[in-house]
Amino acid sequence: MTSYDVLGIGNAIVDVISHADEAFLQKHTLTKGSMMLIDEARAETLYAAMGSGVEVSGGSCGNTMAGIASLGGKGAYIGKVKQDQLGAVFSHDLKAIGVAFDTPQATSGPSTARCLILVTPDAQRTMNTYLGACTGLGPGDIDTKLVAAAQVTYVEGYLWDEPEAKKAVLKAFDAAHAAGRLVSITLSDSFCVDRYRDEFRALIRDKIDILFGNEAEIKSLYQVDSFEKALEATRKEGKIAALTRSEKGSVVIKGSETHAVPAAPITKLVDTTGAGDLYASGFLYGFTRGKPLAECARLGGVAAAEIISHVGPRPETPLRDLI
Amino acid sequence: MTSYDVLGIGNAIVDVISHADEAFLQKHTLTKGSMMLIDEARAETLYAAMGSGVEVSGGSCGNTMAGIASLGGKGAYIGKVKQDQLGAVFSHDLKAIGVAFDTPQATSGPSTARCLILVTPDAQRTMNTYLGACTGLGPGDIDTKLVAAAQVTYVEGYLWDEPEAKKAVLKAFDAAHAAGRLVSITLSDSFCVDRYRDEFRALIRDKIDILFGNEAEIKSLYQVDSFEKALEATRKEGKIAALTRSEKGSVVIKGSETHAVPAAPITKLVDTTGAGDLYASGFLYGFTRGKPLAECARLGGVAAAEIISHVGPRPETPLRDLI
Repeated sequence: MTSYDVLGIGNAIVDVISHADEAFLQKHTLTKGSMMLIDEARAETLYAAMGSGVEVSGGSCGNTMAGIASLGGKGAYIGKVKQDQLGAVFSHDLKAIGVAFDTPQATSGPSTARCLILVTPDAQRTMNTYLGACTGLGPGDIDTKLVAAAQVTYVEGYLWDEPEAKKAVLKAFDAAHAAGRLVSITLSDSFCVDRYRDEFRALIRDKIDILFGNEAEIKSLYQVDSFEKALEATRKEGKIAALTRSEKGSVVIKGSETHAVPAAPITKLVDTTGAGDLYASGFLYGFTRGKPLAECARLGGVAAAEIISHVGPRPETPLRDLI
Repeated sequence: MTSYDVLGIGNAIVDVISHADEAFLQKHTLTKGSMMLIDEARAETLYAAMGSGVEVSGGSCGNTMAGIASLGGKGAYIGKVKQDQLGAVFSHDLKAIGVAFDTPQATSGPSTARCLILVTPDAQRTMNTYLGACTGLGPGDIDTKLVAAAQVTYVEGYLWDEPEAKKAVLKAFDAAHAAGRLVSITLSDSFCVDRYRDEFRALIRDKIDILFGNEAEIKSLYQVDSFEKALEATRKEGKIAALTRSEKGSVVIKGSETHAVPAAPITKLVDTTGAGDLYASGFLYGFTRGKPLAECARLGGVAAAEIISHVGPRPETPLRDLI
C-alpha cells in the first residue's frame, strides 16, 4: 500500500505570462516553442521589454502534480524555492490543490525561479527560464521514505541542467526501484534532448519504466526524421512510452502493443503552455489506478485539452469534473 | 497643452485571484461583492485557506490607468509599492503598458499590498485587501507639476482609508484646480461610502468635477432606496456624474442633461473584477478627447465588457482594437 500515486521532482518555477508578437521573438532572438535558460541579468532585460503579465505557478512537473491533484489523485512534490514572495506563491498553489510539498525553502542565495513566457497569436509559448533557487536542489532534498511511498516517481528532463539536481533524481530513482516502485521521465524539450541525448538514452535503457515525450523530442532523441522511425526506436527500449503529437493525439507503446488515441476536442486554442505537463497528469492518474493504456492516453488528452483552452499551465476547472 | 490625459492616484495592489464557492465565503464571514480591509495575520490565514491563485496587478485606479493606456490614452500614476517581488510586478505591469509611474518605492516597512479576491460561480468578486506598503503614501509623493500636466486627476475613494493618502489626494486636487485642470473620484465601494459618507458628500460638493459610482454606492451616498432618487440627489450637486448599473448600462448626468446608455454586449460573464475601473477608463479616455458624454459612456461600457469576459482586472485584448 502506497501513500501517494505520484511523487514529482522538478524545477519549482513561477511563470510570468505575457502576449507577444513574432517581431518581439525575432528582436530578442527567441526560438519559438522552446525553453531557453537565462541568467538574472537577461531575465531583467527581457522582463523590462515584455508587456504586462500574469503570474501563475508553473514548472513542468509542478503543473503535472497540480493536474494529478485536480483529477483526484494523491501527489507529492520535491522542488526548491526561496523563502520569498514568489516562493510563497508557488508553495501555496501546490498545497492548496492538495499536493504534499515540504522541501525546505532556501533562506539565502538566488530568488525563486521565474519563467518568462511569451504567448504568440498562434497560441504557441516560448519560455525563458531563470532557474534561481532551483539550482540549490540536491540529493539532500530527496526523502527516500517519501519516494518509497509513491507508486511512481516522475521527473522532468529539465533537471539535467543542474548537476546536483541530476544527482537528486538518480538517488530518487534508486530508492524507488529498491522499494519496488516505478520511475518515469518527461524529455521536456527538444533542445534539452539535444543537450543530454546520450545520457537520456542510457537512462531510459537502464532505469526508466515510463517515458513521456512529444514528437519533436522523441525524433531528436533518436536523431530520426519521422515519428514512425522514432516510435520503433523507442519500442526497442522495451519500456512504456507515451508520445504526444499535438492535435494528432498521442501514441502509447508497450512491447508490441501500440495504442493511438485521438486528441480530445477543444473549442478554442488559447495558450499551449502546460499541454505536455497535463497530458502526463492524466496518463499517470489513470496508470496508477490500473487503467488500460489507451484509457490512460485518453485521460491525458482530456487534461491537456483543458489547459490549452486558457492562459496558464494549471487547471482552471477541476479536472475530475471533466473525466 | 497637457502631457497626460489622466493622472491616477490609488492603492498600488497586486491581486491574488482564486475561485471559491458560497460556502467558503460563509465560513470566512466574507460579504459577497464587497471590499474588506484585512491585516497581515488575516491575510495569511485567508491565503492559506484559499485555493490555487493567479497573481495579476490590480488596484482600482491602477486598473483604470492600464485601461486608458490600452485605449491609446496617455496616463500617469501615483501609488506606493515596496521594493519587493510583488512591487516589481506591479511597477512593471503599469510601465509595460505605457503608464508613467515614478513614485518612490518603500525600502522598509510592510510589503507590497495584496488583494485576495474570491470569484464565486456567479462571477461576483469578493475582495480582501491587505494595504501593506500603500499605507506609506502621503503628500510628499504628490508631484504638483505632474498634476498640472494632466487634464484630469482621478482618484479612488478607497484612499480615504489612510489619513496620509487622503491628504495626498487633497494636495493633488488643489494643485489640479490651481492649474485649471479637473478632478474626479470613484466612490469605490458601498461600504467605503458608508465609512466616509459625510466627507464624500462635502468633497463632491466642494471639489469634484466628475463623479463615478455604481448603483449601490450612489444609493448609499444619499441614503435613498431607489436609483432614481439617487440620480436626482446627484444632479443637485451640479457636477458631471457617470453612474453604472451593471447589465443595465450606465447613466450620465450633467445639469439637466441625462444620457442613459445600454451595456455593451458580452458573450460570457467570467469575473466582474475591474468592471467599474475599466468603465472609468473608457469614459475618461473619451472625455479627455472632447467626446460627447453619451459616447464617453459607450466607451466605458466597451472597456468594462472586455474585462468581465475573463479572469483579472487588466485588459487582455488591446482596448483600442475594440472601440
